[in-house]
Parts: sequence; structure tokens; C-alpha cells
Amino acid sequence: MKAANYVVKGQVKVGGSVPVRPGEDEVRLEVGYCGICGTDMHIYQGHMDARVRTPLTIGHEVSATVAELGEGVSSVAVGDRVAVRPLKFGEAHPFDKGHAHVGKNLKFIGIDAPGGMQHSWTVPAYTLHKLPENVSLQHGALAEPAAVACHDVRLGRVQSGETVVVIGGGPIGILVALVAREKGARVIVSEINEKRIDKINTLGLEAVNPLEEDLAEMVASKTKEAMADVVFEVSGSQPGVDAMTSVVNVRGRIVVVGIHPQPRQIDLFRFFWSELELIGARLYEEEDFEEALSLMGEGKLPIEELITKVYPIDEVQAAFETIENHPEGIKYLIKCDE
Amino acid sequence: MKAANYVVKGQVKVGGSVPVRPGEDEVRLEVGYCGICGTDMHIYQGHMDARVRTPLTIGHEVSATVAELGEGVSSVAVGDRVAVRPLKFGEAHPFDKGHAHVGKNLKFIGIDAPGGMQHSWTVPAYTLHKLPENVSLQHGALAEPAAVACHDVRLGRVQSGETVVVIGGGPIGILVALVAREKGARVIVSEINEKRIDKINTLGLEAVNPLEEDLAEMVASKTKEAMADVVFEVSGSQPGVDAMTSVVNVRGRIVVVGIHPQPRQIDLFRFFWSELELIGARLYEEEDFEEALSLMGEGKLPIEELITKVYPIDEVQAAFETIENHPEGIKYLIKCDE
Repeated sequence: MKAANYVVKGQVKVGGSVPVRPGEDEVRLEVGYCGICGTDMHIYQGHMDARVRTPLTIGHEVSATVAELGEGVSSVAVGDRVAVRPLKFGEAHPFDKGHAHVGKNLKFIGIDAPGGMQHSWTVPAYTLHKLPENVSLQHGALAEPAAVACHDVRLGRVQSGETVVVIGGGPIGILVALVAREKGARVIVSEINEKRIDKINTLGLEAVNPLEEDLAEMVASKTKEAMADVVFEVSGSQPGVDAMTSVVNVRGRIVVVGIHPQPRQIDLFRFFWSELELIGARLYEEEDFEEALSLMGEGKLPIEELITKVYPIDEVQAAFETIENHPEGIKYLIKCDE
Repeated sequence: MKAANYVVKGQVKVGGSVPVRPGEDEVRLEVGYCGICGTDMHIYQGHMDARVRTPLTIGHEVSATVAELGEGVSSVAVGDRVAVRPLKFGEAHPFDKGHAHVGKNLKFIGIDAPGGMQHSWTVPAYTLHKLPENVSLQHGALAEPAAVACHDVRLGRVQSGETVVVIGGGPIGILVALVAREKGARVIVSEINEKRIDKINTLGLEAVNPLEEDLAEMVASKTKEAMADVVFEVSGSQPGVDAMTSVVNVRGRIVVVGIHPQPRQIDLFRFFWSELELIGARLYEEEDFEEALSLMGEGKLPIEELITKVYPIDEVQAAFETIENHPEGIKYLIKCDE
């Protein structure tokens, strides 16, 4: 029973996973797989040392099997295969207006509480979503990032027939593009890494490298000047912010998915002139997990194509080092069932 | 029959207003009053010389009486008192998605075509909205800025019981505040000019000077930390942009009303973190004029309080000079019926 613990900048060490008996309305899981997310990389790189208490068992992209039920749990049964929505809701605050997933007292499990990169993990029962029968545990670990994408696309109100531009073709950008395509949109992905561009093309999506051709001109040409109805800014960069207002049409929606640690220069005149809309999107709600799992169950997301490599938990340090040095990879998983 | 013409930076000269026989679907008006707007001030100050062709009869906040009908006009009759929605729609473009009021081929009458600061004025019939019986011609000249406010409040989806912060208490900011109050919102206006603050208080609105007290702290204290549901950025300034993200709560809407000629530093992290929404709003649509006139007819907007001074057209130059030197005034009108 092992666990991967962030200890100090640049170090994730394997330790023991101690089973915690589930309390009322809690469930003990045996974790199958746990994905490594950009946020985990931020923790690994020491950027979140002010927030996390070390050693921290990291990980929040989890698939698992239910091992033990606490008192009062009837939503799942022992043996059920589940994905985990890693949000622990705190006391409601008037500032939140009922939106607990971005509420003031939200705890994110895997950052503010021990995460799922360990074999035995106890979580509130309300965090669990059953995997469809035909979704493997390995694929189930991608339910969490897929739910992010479903949330982003829902907040962007993507409609069939619309043109969507996704700026940044990493794991989330690709999933956003795939979910938007499922809504019936035409999707163009802007990405600067050539290996990722190849992957995006393999998935049947249109990709463009904005360092090689002018993104706005390309979108104009592909849409006969109608431009994009919805843009997803997933790059977290100033060039992405510059691009987002240049490709969108009247009343276009721009969804801010990427994290921008510092203020950005934004062309507010374009917002005024064409009545643009900017929408911040963070995490997910229950319905987004349900939608993600439903799309996965229907085989509508090419999950297998997105898994770059699976590491045993003993090699977790190597996994983090690989991601740091290979920005072209998509999704790396840690196998946690030992 | 006189007209006020912008000639060169700093000069508006009185000339003759030549009646133009209305063509098909056009109407000739005899103008009663024409307000002076911030855009007229920009023209006067020479900032829009690249766009306007001089001499330009300026003005677009117009009340008038119908004098002559062109062929095919049945929507109004000679003698009807009207306000003018000064938008001339051009050919539809796919970029516009049917939103002609912000379309690529829109002509703004009073900037791109001769405006209404003249006695005899010919316009398309579709630009006309009848004044309610109890709205005077003088008050009718404020239908246009009131329609701007109705549009802004509509796009901000202001609901009864919500807290609204308006940043910038000039004519449009005050009208936005008044319309938002009519929707049942609690409204706080942030304004730095003490005379305007007095006026805002006179109107029964809460005003705060952000140079004297911290706006975010004040909103927190007045709302028991619930903060604002909707913010209107009407100042067009970087401090206004800084303030807008500091006073708004989860999924709060920020409506960009002010014109920002250069890019602004914006805290995108706050958009992500609290799922904020930024909405650009420009001009108005037909329904906004109808709503403005309806509110005016019901006596729900204290129009008389907003009129600082009425000048005869012969003194139009003095009017522009006064506005330039007295930023505390609200609305100045030119009487055009001679």
C-alpha cells in the first residue's frame, strides 16, 4: 500500500498509504490510476509551497474501486468502480451565491487535503461518480480533466454549427476541443509545439501554429471572415490573451481556462466595440462529471490517444521529471494499485 | 433654420440647416432639442478627425416633430413627437451574426452622416420612436442616453435584489444607476467629482469617492461581504478597471460601458477564480429605446434633475466650452427649433 508524497521542490517520494476507516458519509477507495495534472506540476516545482502542507500526498485525477463504506452511505456499493470529483465543500458564504465549486471555503482534495496518488484513500461519498461499464479504470482517471473540459464548453455555451478556437493544445485544450466538436462545433486549435500539433491532427482536429502563420488571418480565411463564435484561452500566456480578442466575432464568447498569475493587457475596446463576452471557468460541477463520463461511455472521447505513458507508483519521481522535460506529452498516469 | 457644424478642433460654427426632401422610407424632422454627448466632445476636441468629414453637423441625442413623410412611411404621422435612434444599418456581414447595431457596416448618424443638431433633419423612418404624451420634447432628447443605460442594464442581466456598483457617475453612469434601481437593485456609484457626488446623492443614490475611501472595503461593509453582483465600468480608466474586479462576487457580471482607447491591465486570475463574466455593451437596440421611453413616460427617471443647462443653438460654441471646463455638469442641451 504505497503513496506518492510531495516533500520539497523537485521531489516526490514514495511512502506508505495508511487506510483510514471511513466516517459517516465517507467511503474508502482502492485507487486504480491517478493522472498528473498541471497543478501537480506546479506543486512539484515548489510554486504552491505557501498553500500546501508537506509531506502532501498529491493527485486528484483518480479512478478507484469502492473498498469500504462509512455509515449512511447508499449511493455506492463495495466493488463499484468510480471517478472522484475532488472537491470538499465548506460552509456557504454569501459571496459564493451558492456556487460551492468556486466557493470561499472550498477545499481542493490533493492540494488542501491528502490526494489520490496512493492505494488507499478515504473521501466524502458525494465526490464519487460511477464509471460506465465499458470505461476502464485506466481511462476513468481522465474523467476529471474531461469534466474540466465539459465545464468550460458548457460555460462557453457552444452550439452546433459554431466555430470554436482553442488557444493552447495541452491536455485540457485538447479535451475542450474534443468536447466542443461533440457539440457540433468546428474547432481550430492554436498550439506552438509541433509534436502536439501532430497529435492534434491525429485526433482529426484542425491545428495551426501561430508562430508560423497569423492566427487571425487563418481563422478569417477558414471562416470566410465570419471568425470564431467561441474562444477558449487555455495557454495562460500574454500572446494567448492578445490572440483571443483578434479571432472572435460579434457577441463572441471568450472562456478563460488558463491560469494567469499576473494581470494581462487586454483590448477592452474590442469588448465594447463588438459586445464580446469574457467568461472565467474553473473546475467543474456535478453535471460536468456526469457529462464527461457519459461521453466516455459512449466512446465519444478518444481517451486512449491521450494517454502518453503509465508509470508504476514506484517510478513517480521519474514521471514528474519526464513531464518537466517533455512538454509535448499529453497525459501521464500513475498506477496506484499496490 | 440653423445647424451646428464641427469645423475644426475646438470650433463648432452655426450655419444653415437645409431641408432635405425625404426619400422612400425616410422622414423629415423638425428638431426640438439635441443633447451633447461625450462622443460629441471627442469630435469637438479633434480626437475623431480621422473618422469624420468636416464640416459635420454633429449631434445624435435628438427629440423632434415629424414634418414630412417620404413614400411608404406609415409608422409615424406629421406632427408626431419622436426620439431618434441614430443608427443607419448597412449590409449584413457574417461577422455580425445579425447584431446590426454593432455590425461592420453600421453608420452612426451624427458621426458618419449628418447629425441632429440642426432644425431640419431627414432620417430613415425606422430610426424613430414616438415620445409618450407626457414626455416633453426637452426631456425626449435624453431618450438616447437613457436607451444606452437600458441596453447596459439589460446586457448585465440586473435582477431585483442584486447589488450593483457603477464606476463613474457621469451622465451615462447616473442613468445606468437609475435604470438598475428601477430593476430593484441596490446601487452604489463610485465617482471622484464631489459636485457630481452631491448630485448623485440628490437623486437618492449611494455615492462613494474611491479617492477618499477604499471602494472594495466600502462595498464589503455595506453588503456584509456579499459584494456586488453586477459592476458597470463607465469610467474608461485603468483605476476603474482595477476596481471592477475588486468589488464583484462569484459569477459576478462586469459590464464594460466606458471606452478604453488603449489595452488595460486586467486581473484575469480573478475571472478564473470566481468565474466572473465581462460583457462589452455598446449603443442600443430597438427594445432599449422602447424601454427608455416607457420608463420616462411612467416618470421613473428624474430627467429634469439631469439637465444642467439648455443653450440656444446660436450659443453652441459656448456650450462646448462650458462642458470642457466644467466636468461636474450632467447633461447640456441645444435648443434647435430655429
